[in-house]
Amino acid sequence: MIYLDNAATTRLDSDVLEAMMPYLTDVYGNPSSQHSAGRRAANAVTEARDKIAGIVGAAPSGLYFTAGGTEAANTALKGICAANTGKGRHIVLSAIEHPALIESARDLCAHGWQLTLVYPDGDGIVSPDAVEAAMRPDTVFAGVMAANNEVGTVQPIREIYERVKARGVFFYCDCVQTAGVLPFSDFPADGIGFAAHKFYGPKGVGCLCIKKGFRFERLLSGGNQERGLRAGTTYVAGAVGCAAALEKAYADAGRNNARVAALRDEFVERILAANCGAHLNGDAHRRLPANANISFDGCDGEQVVFGLDLMDIAVSTGSACSSGAVTPSHVLTAMRLPEERVRSAVRFTFGKYNTEEEVLRTVQCVKTVTERIRKGAR
Amino acid sequence: MIYLDNAATTRLDSDVLEAMMPYLTDVYGNPSSQHSAGRRAANAVTEARDKIAGIVGAAPSGLYFTAGGTEAANTALKGICAANTGKGRHIVLSAIEHPALIESARDLCAHGWQLTLVYPDGDGIVSPDAVEAAMRPDTVFAGVMAANNEVGTVQPIREIYERVKARGVFFYCDCVQTAGVLPFSDFPADGIGFAAHKFYGPKGVGCLCIKKGFRFERLLSGGNQERGLRAGTTYVAGAVGCAAALEKAYADAGRNNARVAALRDEFVERILAANCGAHLNGDAHRRLPANANISFDGCDGEQVVFGLDLMDIAVSTGSACSSGAVTPSHVLTAMRLPEERVRSAVRFTFGKYNTEEEVLRTVQCVKTVTERIRKGAR
Repeated sequence: MIYLDNAATTRLDSDVLEAMMPYLTDVYGNPSSQHSAGRRAANAVTEARDKIAGIVGAAPSGLYFTAGGTEAANTALKGICAANTGKGRHIVLSAIEHPALIESARDLCAHGWQLTLVYPDGDGIVSPDAVEAAMRPDTVFAGVMAANNEVGTVQPIREIYERVKARGVFFYCDCVQTAGVLPFSDFPADGIGFAAHKFYGPKGVGCLCIKKGFRFERLLSGGNQERGLRAGTTYVAGAVGCAAALEKAYADAGRNNARVAALRDEFVERILAANCGAHLNGDAHRRLPANANISFDGCDGEQVVFGLDLMDIAVSTGSACSSGAVTPSHVLTAMRLPEERVRSAVRFTFGKYNTEEEVLRTVQCVKTVTERIRKGAR
Repeated sequence: MIYLDNAATTRLDSDVLEAMMPYLTDVYGNPSSQHSAGRRAANAVTEARDKIAGIVGAAPSGLYFTAGGTEAANTALKGICAANTGKGRHIVLSAIEHPALIESARDLCAHGWQLTLVYPDGDGIVSPDAVEAAMRPDTVFAGVMAANNEVGTVQPIREIYERVKARGVFFYCDCVQTAGVLPFSDFPADGIGFAAHKFYGPKGVGCLCIKKGFRFERLLSGGNQERGLRAGTTYVAGAVGCAAALEKAYADAGRNNARVAALRDEFVERILAANCGAHLNGDAHRRLPANANISFDGCDGEQVVFGLDLMDIAVSTGSACSSGAVTPSHVLTAMRLPEERVRSAVRFTFGKYNTEEEVLRTVQCVKTVTERIRKGAR
């Protein structure tokens, strides 16, 4: 299989699995227990927390292990909003946020909250001016993602954060797509979140970091885990795996990003030159090294995905979280791309395990599949 | 190490880990993806869901994978309450429920809800009459656990459910301690939840089952996973491990329960005869096969835990989730045990990996430790 859906999830790195194995075998204590079996587990969680906090540039006491990026985003949005109803009931999000934030805000809207969506430009970039203009005196929460999961556009978070901060509003930056790839220091915020399985770590674990001084209501109530703010027995092997994966990702980021971007660039160049009616969606420069979002004239994106799947190549039309939905991509729609471009978009996301040979074969297969579709000979 | 804290967590069974391994290596697709890599993962999740639903006696469409028992309990309580505010704002829980339910209810109390706690008798049994008496016309949610995590008392859930159902109130039964041990059919309810790591499965995964016809608001908003009611990339290996662990637990339950109960009974018998001021807490007959909760005259439970820990024996004062808390056990307090009995309680919970030799050594060590404590020569 040629796997080009690395934005949906990545293969667990064997070094990361090796780091996790002691916690799937011998070190099985509950980290909340008081005996040495518990303490061994607790020490591993503390080490993982310290390691991740060090990489993020956050205080370990402000880092919460979650079940993934979705729980991190839900906890931040719902938790900050619940703790600040005295200030108002207004939320600002970019229109291209992940559903974990947009749907969380919509759920609050059923309880009297209001949501303003900030639209990006045609290249998928969210402007700091537009975010500032959306804010109101009763705004409690603002969220703009570090990089978009569908088109890979990297947002001007530093400038956006300055504007939001000046208004005294809590700013959340969803770092699910940049964690392990671009430095966290590029994306300053009051809260950030990410998921380990996006950077060759395990599924089922992620992190939420909230800066000191911001109070939030917990989403999961119960035991005293995570300083009383995220109850439930800690997934010890997951926490360890998350730390190992993040550490390795940044140790190798220089080399991997260059390699992945070179593969992606070669792919885009060849596809655009292949006379198969291809158009690159999203800003050509301010984008993740791994991402190529391409529309094909006269094709339905789903047809391309299915056609490539039959040739054992894994790509997607957009976010895996929205798969199966009949609605067109909310990201490309928000970028105001023509309906034909939205309908025909395919996301190719490269990773460290891909090779140049795979790129060349994929280009050939894309040509074959799109030609067939255009000839109506599926 | 002699591990006698199996109610806190269990060692992952090597057969279960083996079942999980393909999903920690080759089958790494996102189960929400449309390509074959995704479908392989999705098929594994579907198989796991079907297997668990079959064992539980639930519809697969009413089974939601969660991060564990705490998320299951939070989703049930907060989700059912949020979806039924039209009916009222009153919750009934037994006073010996896990904090995952009690703290969830307390969090709702900060938003205008009311909570009535139903106290058990001195043996830790919750009476159906008492539950019925606590219900009001505006009661929306009632919860009584299948078996208590501290004293192991098994509750008369069938009778309690009949009373609650007759009132048209949603009934939740926390099955965290009975899953894999006693049949789910003994604990009928509208909603149940459990965590894989309590029955030799992995940490970080659990299940919530809600019967058809009950609407609840989702706790985690975002993607379309779990029929839109629990967003976030599914922890595939966890779901597979949960199913494998539950299947094996019930396949072996007859033999394991008898063995574990025999070890526990021998332990209790020898401890009570050992002249070390021991008193068994909780009903002597209606209790989990694994549990022995024992108070030691003139001792502090924590001292016993620490003393045994130095001898490489892992036991606990109560729930791991409450460890580190300075407050005495809410379970033993609710049973109205004398303060001295509450303060001196130690929980020994046996498991399938324990041996008779370990029981004998533990009895000796308990004698030594409690004698030392009573002599003030810690």
